[in-house]
Amino acid sequence: MLRRILFLASLAIFLLVTGTVAWAAGDPTGAATLKADPGKAVDYVWILLCGFLVMFMQAGFACVESGFCRAKNVTNLMTKNLLDFVVGSLAFWAVGFGIIMGADWNGLIGSSKFFLAGDSYDVETYLSFFWQLVFAATAATIVSGAVAERMKFQAYLVYSAVICLLFYPVYAHWVWGSGWLSKLPYGLGHLDFAGSGVVHAVGGFVGLAGAIVLGPRYGKFGKDGKPRAIPGHSISLAALGTFILWFGWFGFNPGSTFSAHQLRISVIAVNTTLCASAASMTALLLVLGKTKKYDLGMALNGALAGLVAVTAPCAWIPSWAAVVIGIVAGFLVVGGVYLLDALKIDDPVGAVPVHGFNGVWGLLAVGIFADGTYGNYAAKAPFVQGLLYGGAGAGQFMAQLIGAVVVIAWAFGCGLILFKVLDAVIGIRVDPHEELQGLDVVEHGTPGYPEFYIPRI
Amino acid sequence: MLRRILFLASLAIFLLVTGTVAWAAGDPTGAATLKADPGKAVDYVWILLCGFLVMFMQAGFACVESGFCRAKNVTNLMTKNLLDFVVGSLAFWAVGFGIIMGADWNGLIGSSKFFLAGDSYDVETYLSFFWQLVFAATAATIVSGAVAERMKFQAYLVYSAVICLLFYPVYAHWVWGSGWLSKLPYGLGHLDFAGSGVVHAVGGFVGLAGAIVLGPRYGKFGKDGKPRAIPGHSISLAALGTFILWFGWFGFNPGSTFSAHQLRISVIAVNTTLCASAASMTALLLVLGKTKKYDLGMALNGALAGLVAVTAPCAWIPSWAAVVIGIVAGFLVVGGVYLLDALKIDDPVGAVPVHGFNGVWGLLAVGIFADGTYGNYAAKAPFVQGLLYGGAGAGQFMAQLIGAVVVIAWAFGCGLILFKVLDAVIGIRVDPHEELQGLDVVEHGTPGYPEFYIPRI
Amino acid sequence: MLRRILFLASLAIFLLVTGTVAWAAGDPTGAATLKADPGKAVDYVWILLCGFLVMFMQAGFACVESGFCRAKNVTNLMTKNLLDFVVGSLAFWAVGFGIIMGADWNGLIGSSKFFLAGDSYDVETYLSFFWQLVFAATAATIVSGAVAERMKFQAYLVYSAVICLLFYPVYAHWVWGSGWLSKLPYGLGHLDFAGSGVVHAVGGFVGLAGAIVLGPRYGKFGKDGKPRAIPGHSISLAALGTFILWFGWFGFNPGSTFSAHQLRISVIAVNTTLCASAASMTALLLVLGKTKKYDLGMALNGALAGLVAVTAPCAWIPSWAAVVIGIVAGFLVVGGVYLLDALKIDDPVGAVPVHGFNGVWGLLAVGIFADGTYGNYAAKAPFVQGLLYGGAGAGQFMAQLIGAVVVIAWAFGCGLILFKVLDAVIGIRVDPHEELQGLDVVEHGTPGYPEFYIPRI
Repeated sequence: MLRRILFLASLAIFLLVTGTVAWAAGDPTGAATLKADPGKAVDYVWILLCGFLVMFMQAGFACVESGFCRAKNVTNLMTKNLLDFVVGSLAFWAVGFGIIMGADWNGLIGSSKFFLAGDSYDVETYLSFFWQLVFAATAATIVSGAVAERMKFQAYLVYSAVICLLFYPVYAHWVWGSGWLSKLPYGLGHLDFAGSGVVHAVGGFVGLAGAIVLGPRYGKFGKDGKPRAIPGHSISLAALGTFILWFGWFGFNPGSTFSAHQLRISVIAVNTTLCASAASMTALLLVLGKTKKYDLGMALNGALAGLVAVTAPCAWIPSWAAVVIGIVAGFLVVGGVYLLDALKIDDPVGAVPVHGFNGVWGLLAVGIFADGTYGNYAAKAPFVQGLLYGGAGAGQFMAQLIGAVVVIAWAFGCGLILFKVLDAVIGIRVDPHEELQGLDVVEHGTPGYPEFYIPRI
Repeated sequence: MLRRILFLASLAIFLLVTGTVAWAAGDPTGAATLKADPGKAVDYVWILLCGFLVMFMQAGFACVESGFCRAKNVTNLMTKNLLDFVVGSLAFWAVGFGIIMGADWNGLIGSSKFFLAGDSYDVETYLSFFWQLVFAATAATIVSGAVAERMKFQAYLVYSAVICLLFYPVYAHWVWGSGWLSKLPYGLGHLDFAGSGVVHAVGGFVGLAGAIVLGPRYGKFGKDGKPRAIPGHSISLAALGTFILWFGWFGFNPGSTFSAHQLRISVIAVNTTLCASAASMTALLLVLGKTKKYDLGMALNGALAGLVAVTAPCAWIPSWAAVVIGIVAGFLVVGGVYLLDALKIDDPVGAVPVHGFNGVWGLLAVGIFADGTYGNYAAKAPFVQGLLYGGAGAGQFMAQLIGAVVVIAWAFGCGLILFKVLDAVIGIRVDPHEELQGLDVVEHGTPGYPEFYIPRI
Repeated sequence: MLRRILFLASLAIFLLVTGTVAWAAGDPTGAATLKADPGKAVDYVWILLCGFLVMFMQAGFACVESGFCRAKNVTNLMTKNLLDFVVGSLAFWAVGFGIIMGADWNGLIGSSKFFLAGDSYDVETYLSFFWQLVFAATAATIVSGAVAERMKFQAYLVYSAVICLLFYPVYAHWVWGSGWLSKLPYGLGHLDFAGSGVVHAVGGFVGLAGAIVLGPRYGKFGKDGKPRAIPGHSISLAALGTFILWFGWFGFNPGSTFSAHQLRISVIAVNTTLCASAASMTALLLVLGKTKKYDLGMALNGALAGLVAVTAPCAWIPSWAAVVIGIVAGFLVVGGVYLLDALKIDDPVGAVPVHGFNGVWGLLAVGIFADGTYGNYAAKAPFVQGLLYGGAGAGQFMAQLIGAVVVIAWAFGCGLILFKVLDAVIGIRVDPHEELQGLDVVEHGTPGYPEFYIPRI
């Protein structure tokens, strides 16, 4: 059966694409593109290297999620984090990219550039594809943290593909692909510089839906209903992953100028760092006040929360605002973790507070703190203004609020439908005894650390 | 004795080089080079940053090899992976680089630029040296996976030096240093964009020779001759290493334009990703079909196989061909692992199928899929064409086939001679009781994880 | 109390900064800056990407320190390595940066640009801030290795802030901010290309002071006074960290041209690699000569020692000098480790020999090996000359010697005062039973590897 799938897939690709190359009318060598604008050389260097950093975030997510979960599921988590990129990139190549960046259809969906065929054999289109791909894969990989340690691998493969084929691209088209959200009649339309909403809130709220449909892990809530901590198996892996993510975020945010000729990239890099630091510090101090312990897990998630929150506004705010946004992000991530516990929702790595709640906060922050010094993806007037900076701010805040509501509804709604359907059709949760044993042996046949003595199951 | 070596080495360097600086006639500041071509600034940024990524692949190899091997040999593997870069860079500085890029002698060997002395004190030469160095070190480090867990460290140091001094540079000279393979009278001569052959096949087939001469690890094959899995000690380390390698490969392949003014770099980045994804998916599905398990080890090696296979053709093919090449790579890596098992050759991390077999496949793929849209290292006519794209393709395929045969013969032959000689002179395999105990304590005096309880030996 | 701190901090930031944005007169968009010099685009790409690499060194330090220490303190070490960047970036934003790069006051201290407010809302200033920040954070993080496994976390937070607020910025101002050391009337004034002194010697000698004031870890010295090895818990983590540091150092050194238009960056990259390799090889051979074992820990520290030593001279020397400097660095790091043992000073990860002693060696090496081919931070005459290259060398060597004495006195003196005061006021060392139990549970409430069986305490 598998061979048949592979054979048919290859055949389909051949038939679909070989012919099309003949009528390619793009600029596959790049010579014409460079001639038209010699500045493209440095732009390509900037965009590609930033894109490589974003791709490297996959390693960061893999380490954070694995580190925060138990040793019996580490093979499973690593496989997921590899495979969502693998499946995602193929799905995104075939369909997803065309939905974001293809010719717009009524502000709702893109409708060309599938398989990068025909005209799309062009250095500009490939560059755009690479950039969009690494972002799409990030959205997909966020979900895996929220559904960790109890989901069937098969279901995982399916939803990864669906996110990269559909959920992510459609919403990204609305915001970044000239879709309807980008054209809201408020402020400059809904704005999301590097994807607090498009990437993180989408990932976070699909994850929330998944966590709810799956239900909590065995043992997460006691008979008294109280949450019990299930500590991760390797704090060093989780910490390393967070450093990698922070590093990769410097591609994510500054690279989203999609041009090296926006020297604003230095401001973006600084804001990214300060917001993460302020959020991490805040989260650490909040937990310290409560437990008298310096909680590394919360400090790590605090840093990530700050990175998520600053992702949308990073280009439009001054440094002090980054610090303030970070302080709020720190409160949000700590509060979010307690809230989910109170709601009996089990999100093993805190993906929902980090990416979901702070993604939304980032969108709103644009409408509050944007200071009118920088335009929409370029240093062009009109500049983006938030509530604190004059009359135009109210309109922008409205646009941000609408986008925030839409992203929650879209991601959570799509996620809920998807996981419910998957659950009905193939089942999404492993059997209880499999969960107890760990997914590594059951699904993958290979424990993560076969030589080490691990007394607890 | 060691001090004497160090003293003599220092002295030799002094005598050899101090004098030569006086007559340096290169451009050590770079001012003249920049003046002649202001575009060099962005080229240097691109090449150096890509080179840094390639250097970081050393960390990836270290993690993959260590993760796939046992805890008792982790210090040994990490030392090897550090030392091959250390020894390699000194050997390459003294001699290796001159053999690749020095003045050509009859198409066989380069013969100047040793020690970067004299004229070579020049920003262009240093740049070229840095680039060639990180590639040479990659070839050396590939070998260590195939000979893991049973080789004497002393022998390892010697062969690392020999690879960087001789085996790698000579073959690289033939392909990249205006040597005879680059001037074959077929197609545009033998082509290998980023080194499927030069780096990976060389590393893989030297490794094959090493694995054969060494023989299998104790316990790898049962008395019935059947192979037994020896699982690696840390799947998270192996997975992290693969992510690092994938990340570093974005330097390896796109950086091989050796110019930022080839906007084709976006196409190269996309092809690199798609091929890796297709290969990883294929490998995963093949093993799933056989064992009903999602095998992470094979998915990781699948991704690496795809990366290796696309390394030679990445600049000359459209995206769909990258996917097809990846599917084939997935079959090759899975088949290769089974083949080695059947031949009773023990390659602990799968270095031979990943780098050797897929390196050769990459060379051939150029001759099949090159689509005539891009030239040899620059967007200049004539463009490279493979079998699927018209009459010139047969010539190119022939050139690729010759190169493939040559690289196998050269690398395997040199490796066989080297390891046989080393075995006769100093012995290359540790004693059986040392192998059982693990190389960490025996050779290095330090176990990798002294505090953890590891029941198995 | 904590909430009050947070509230007051937010309020202070608001009051301090919101108003100031109004009178900003910098170039926050970067449009004017780019127009004045279109070459800035590639400079920004270079500087930012190199800065990202330097930031990633935080991950390297975290892994090296954690790997070289015991499993019971891994959460503590990771928290420190995260928090010094977090605290450091906030402290550096508020005050530290202004002290380095603010308007000079009598050659002693900078006095503007605090909070990046007012005029500082400018792409050039933000760029400079980002670059200086990642360097300052490196200096802070070096200390944590020397004081590992026995310091109270609260004291750690305070000294991290003080280093980033004061110790580092003041000395950096003297060398890089037009301060008095840069204007010494010898040679071209004291020179330190990328910070052997400013970053590494400062970090190393503050760390030495901390190690002395704290005293050795329980069990480090036997009743007979002999040192006992306390092996690190994960050699793979330490090795990975070293690879990450080496990778990040390619941002540290070549990026310190602060311009992509200095093609000398290729020479710097090569020198960086060769010096690290020579030092690692030397350290390995020295220990081999003594113990007949290939000591990975020493090879790793050797590589780092070489990287530190070449940091000051990397731009001004030819490749052979990098090798020689590396050989000396190898001797220094091995000798330094034995020296500290003899002095009964406990530096768990070797931070003092690696960063302190070799930082000083790097400063002197400028005065010896600078070959007169490259100027002070630009390819401009007069070029830097050391003792081996003519009469001007004596003056330069004198300038380097003065800087070396000053950095030792400043860093060690400041460190001694700080740790003594901290010890008197809040106490810096944990209780003996807490030290035995490990800091993870005591200070952080979370063991690093809760599922693994770790027999030793």
